Amino acid sequence: MSSQSWLLIGVGGGLLSVAVAVFLFFWVRKQDAGSERAQEVARWIREGASSYLIKLYTSLALVAVILGFVIALVFSFEMNDLGNSQVTVNSAEGLRVAVTFITGAICSAIAGYMGMSVAVEANVRSATAAEKSLNQAFRVAFYAGSVMGLAMVGLAVIGMCGIYLLTGDAELILGFSFGASTLALLAKAGGGIYTKTADIAADLVGKVEIGIPEDDPRNPAVVADNVGDNVGDVAGMGADIFDSYVASAVAAILLGAALPNQTDSRYVVFPLILCILGIFASLIGIQFVRVGKNGKPGPALNRGTVITAIIFAAMVAVLVFFGGYDKGALWATLVGLVTGVIIGFTSDYFTSDVYKPVQETAKVSGSGSAINIITGFSYGLISIVPSVIGIVVATLLSFYFGQASGVLTGVYGIGISAVGMLAISGMIVSSDAYGPIVDNARGIAEMAGMDHEVIERADVLDSAGNTAKAITKGFSISAAALTVLALFASYAEVIEASGKALTISLRDPIVIAGVFLGAMTPPLFSALTMLSVTNNAFDMIEEIRRQFREEPGILAGKVLPNYNACVSMAAHGALKSLVLPAFLAIGLPLLIGFILGPDALGGFLGGSIFTGIVFALLMANAGGLWDNAKKFVETGKFGGPGSDAHKAAVVGDTVGDPFKDTAGPSLNTLITVMSLVSSLFAPVIAAFHLF
Amino acid sequence: MSSQSWLLIGVGGGLLSVAVAVFLFFWVRKQDAGSERAQEVARWIREGASSYLIKLYTSLALVAVILGFVIALVFSFEMNDLGNSQVTVNSAEGLRVAVTFITGAICSAIAGYMGMSVAVEANVRSATAAEKSLNQAFRVAFYAGSVMGLAMVGLAVIGMCGIYLLTGDAELILGFSFGASTLALLAKAGGGIYTKTADIAADLVGKVEIGIPEDDPRNPAVVADNVGDNVGDVAGMGADIFDSYVASAVAAILLGAALPNQTDSRYVVFPLILCILGIFASLIGIQFVRVGKNGKPGPALNRGTVITAIIFAAMVAVLVFFGGYDKGALWATLVGLVTGVIIGFTSDYFTSDVYKPVQETAKVSGSGSAINIITGFSYGLISIVPSVIGIVVATLLSFYFGQASGVLTGVYGIGISAVGMLAISGMIVSSDAYGPIVDNARGIAEMAGMDHEVIERADVLDSAGNTAKAITKGFSISAAALTVLALFASYAEVIEASGKALTISLRDPIVIAGVFLGAMTPPLFSALTMLSVTNNAFDMIEEIRRQFREEPGILAGKVLPNYNACVSMAAHGALKSLVLPAFLAIGLPLLIGFILGPDALGGFLGGSIFTGIVFALLMANAGGLWDNAKKFVETGKFGGPGSDAHKAAVVGDTVGDPFKDTAGPSLNTLITVMSLVSSLFAPVIAAFHLF
Repeated sequence: MSSQSWLLIGVGGGLLSVAVAVFLFFWVRKQDAGSERAQEVARWIREGASSYLIKLYTSLALVAVILGFVIALVFSFEMNDLGNSQVTVNSAEGLRVAVTFITGAICSAIAGYMGMSVAVEANVRSATAAEKSLNQAFRVAFYAGSVMGLAMVGLAVIGMCGIYLLTGDAELILGFSFGASTLALLAKAGGGIYTKTADIAADLVGKVEIGIPEDDPRNPAVVADNVGDNVGDVAGMGADIFDSYVASAVAAILLGAALPNQTDSRYVVFPLILCILGIFASLIGIQFVRVGKNGKPGPALNRGTVITAIIFAAMVAVLVFFGGYDKGALWATLVGLVTGVIIGFTSDYFTSDVYKPVQETAKVSGSGSAINIITGFSYGLISIVPSVIGIVVATLLSFYFGQASGVLTGVYGIGISAVGMLAISGMIVSSDAYGPIVDNARGIAEMAGMDHEVIERADVLDSAGNTAKAITKGFSISAAALTVLALFASYAEVIEASGKALTISLRDPIVIAGVFLGAMTPPLFSALTMLSVTNNAFDMIEEIRRQFREEPGILAGKVLPNYNACVSMAAHGALKSLVLPAFLAIGLPLLIGFILGPDALGGFLGGSIFTGIVFALLMANAGGLWDNAKKFVETGKFGGPGSDAHKAAVVGDTVGDPFKDTAGPSLNTLITVMSLVSSLFAPVIAAFHLF
Repeated sequence: MSSQSWLLIGVGGGLLSVAVAVFLFFWVRKQDAGSERAQEVARWIREGASSYLIKLYTSLALVAVILGFVIALVFSFEMNDLGNSQVTVNSAEGLRVAVTFITGAICSAIAGYMGMSVAVEANVRSATAAEKSLNQAFRVAFYAGSVMGLAMVGLAVIGMCGIYLLTGDAELILGFSFGASTLALLAKAGGGIYTKTADIAADLVGKVEIGIPEDDPRNPAVVADNVGDNVGDVAGMGADIFDSYVASAVAAILLGAALPNQTDSRYVVFPLILCILGIFASLIGIQFVRVGKNGKPGPALNRGTVITAIIFAAMVAVLVFFGGYDKGALWATLVGLVTGVIIGFTSDYFTSDVYKPVQETAKVSGSGSAINIITGFSYGLISIVPSVIGIVVATLLSFYFGQASGVLTGVYGIGISAVGMLAISGMIVSSDAYGPIVDNARGIAEMAGMDHEVIERADVLDSAGNTAKAITKGFSISAAALTVLALFASYAEVIEASGKALTISLRDPIVIAGVFLGAMTPPLFSALTMLSVTNNAFDMIEEIRRQFREEPGILAGKVLPNYNACVSMAAHGALKSLVLPAFLAIGLPLLIGFILGPDALGGFLGGSIFTGIVFALLMANAGGLWDNAKKFVETGKFGGPGSDAHKAAVVGDTVGDPFKDTAGPSLNTLITVMSLVSSLFAPVIAAFHLF
């Protein structure tokens, strides 16, 4: 089949995926929305979420327009000749890059908004369905999650195939990807700050000071907390994988365009074909996610992932064997796919309560919160090891398969393995977005005063969601690692295409300088976002205490607290906190590049990738581990709820909250954005830099 | 002056330094050892410390002999020709390397032992002197610290100059350095595990559970805690700077030997001359450290450091201008010296209670320990930034001065700047070793039931010690960074000298693989040592509880607890915990080198340096910050002692303990040992590797 036909199939497949998402959206909305009380609670959450998203997107629209303008300006000057600074003005080119950038941002925003919209409809319906049966509640939540997953991959593929179809210019897809990732970073970091601000404030005053249960409607921060689950986990995580998904495809496309001796664009389009096949595989795999009468939700989700992976692998094998592609491309795809699934499941070892790390951390909690934290943090550090080894093996193997093929290059192999990992994102995101929906359903069940049995069912659903979340996190971090390595390679290709040799040797002090500066960026970014959480939570704690103090009727359950005060406090705080992180992601790489030059920028990207991955794994896994250690104690182990061990475990869980939900998950996106902005501006940097 | 004469002066200067150390040692012992009760307490500590050091050195002697044997064996085969694996046997060469290795280990052990011996004599004498006056107590403690500082630099210079004088072979000093660093790593990590095991266990049961004060003699772990201060802080920190000191000189010597177009060995010996001048400057500077009648100890220590630095700089200027050395060497030295002092003092910003980080962390403690920890951890992450920028600037500037000189090379400039930083270690270590001595003096004053006024004076001395410690830590981490960068360069030189081109390009996937594996090593090492602390502390907590439970007379103050049970528990636990970390430091680089080859090993070293420095700064500064935030609350701020804020701050302090005293300070030494073992084995690795 010609590349042209594949691109058309891509647009068609993307439209199909979006259509299924829209269909499921309306299916979810048709479900029973439950009692008036439940609907009222759901309405609070929905309104809070909408008001935040509107504020967020308004601010981001401004950022996107400004950045788009800068891009249009910069890319209107064509650097034809290096050294000789002869420039020609080509404003059409500048406009094209700016338009793709803004399109990427809009697609990412739409996917996030759709996911959010369905989530806030699905939570109450899933809770209501849980009054009847577990499997009905599961179905509502999972199909709602699928809306997010399918909308996301559909829009991404339509965007990428469409741009390539219209322009035939692979580099324009880079602009699209940069737009998507910039929006994802801000949505993710903002949502992460929002959700943990509300969560920590609600817990510290509610559970610790006053002693009322989680999701108690008397807590003024309870609505903000539930809104946070939606804006942080649903919209944020979706945006996160959306950006890796697009970025991995773009990196492979650019590396495909740089392949030597190619006569057509078959290997340029190959990554897009993988995405298309991944969509079809996900559409089929989703059908297998069902819970029987006495079935369990966790295995159902895992079954879906494994079946999707197998179908996808079979499709790629058929494509390669009958489509006349080099077999190296198949092996590289499989390396990525298998590594992704393996790393995902091994990250479960560090965060699941059936293994030593969580159990040990829960056990030592009896000796106080300090020991709990040191132990959890240490296991978090150890959890870096298996994933890093997995990434290293995947990198070396896929490079080998690419290089040994003779037709492809080693770095193209790495690019393809990243795409192989992410191609089944439709399915991965579906089971990931399921998590916060059932978490919210549990909250609504509690706030709306549903039966104890319903809350127990919601707990079962929630626990499966947590495992899915842990797996997805390991998966998405390793996928991001391979993606940024491929982007790193394409950055180097773009610089060399500008006529400048680029070694990025660690024996060069300017590279060492770049690596050190890059290595400090992810820790600094993490610190800024986490300090935002504590600062904002600190303000909110004062607000909650003020409400309890000034209106004793709240605690008595006679007067509704002012939920809105906390909701708008969280939103305002999160948006304000995004300025510095955004500068770090976009401004710092450009500064390094324009001042210290392309070699230093190469080192900078390398350094940020190394510590970015290390800190992302540490924070995600330590956070998940503390969460589950607390839950393990809550099952009655080591003294159970209310014991000293429990109090210590709650401290660990609270420390882990901004680790796993604010700083950790943004780091992937941070290094992706930094790699993208560097690749996009590489030709300009190659032409103009101070040293 | 000829190189030969300088080496003789070096041996003479080293002997002078050791002689002054021995003189001060006897001066300290002549001081009043105080009341019988105080002497008894001191004897417990002394005996505990001796018994641990004897156990430690016995185990390490075994390790040294085994490693020495391996080295003798490996270096008996000379790889004359790369590729063609023609080897000649030269067992004399093997023996020489092994002997220098063991000599290095022995020198390091002697310096550590001398420092420890004087510390356990000085603590009680300083406490006793504090009964009379603050300045007398200060003098005893500082001169005792100087014993450590002067013995250390003296032995190091005697060893290095002696070896070069006898053999004329710069590479043999590498063996000496590797021996010193290996011993330092194990002494440091073992001591760090020991001290925090005892500290955490004593605090958690004593202060938190039972509510008795720090250093209360009823606490069974109190002796182990005070022993720990000596084996961890005195012996450990001394060994730490000893190893950076020697390693920086070795790196510069090797880079000097690799200089092109040199006719004599003047630039090979130049680093040793800097060390010699540094000794003289320290001997003078120490005279200026005096506290007047109403003087303050903190400024006195800082004055000593600054005066020593100025004298040293003047001496180097005279040497360069009148000795006919290239001025690039002077500028590089000054870059190192100035950067070291600046980074040392800026790290004070993050750990001193007069600035925002500590105050803010103390303030938020009112909202619970989780917020305290998130805030302190975040500031710890931010504290990486100024030091990294300092290291980057120092690297680039010293490289520039080396390269621009025309005579020297850029990497030689980096090597010299590291030596410039560390040359005044005699003074730095003196004021650093002072800290744990006064900390112990305070403990003895409390345990021996001295007057409240004495304890207050001891507190003043202690607080100055903490500031000195913070400055030294910033200093030693940045010194280690420049040292390992120089070692990294000399590793590359050694590989290239074997006839193999070495690029270590980040575009090479095997290098990326190496960097990732290197980047995960410092976090893994930190986790292993910290888990050892919690595991051992957990056992000790049970032991303390058991003693309180089975013998109620202990808490009533009628029966002495069984101190020895805790002391030997801490010692045994620490030694057992060293096996895996030792493998990581020595075995892993060799494995990477022999399996993945020299490029991967280069990447591995780079990766370990980047995350090693990042984690070392994070852990040292976050730990110091939590400690001082707790002390700030204890001064009566935000509720003062006993308040909720205080309880939260105590948790932060406990989490910070293994950060700043176990994992953090070992990381410098870890990356130094890894760099040294790689440089030492580089010729063998260049000849034999799997891929």
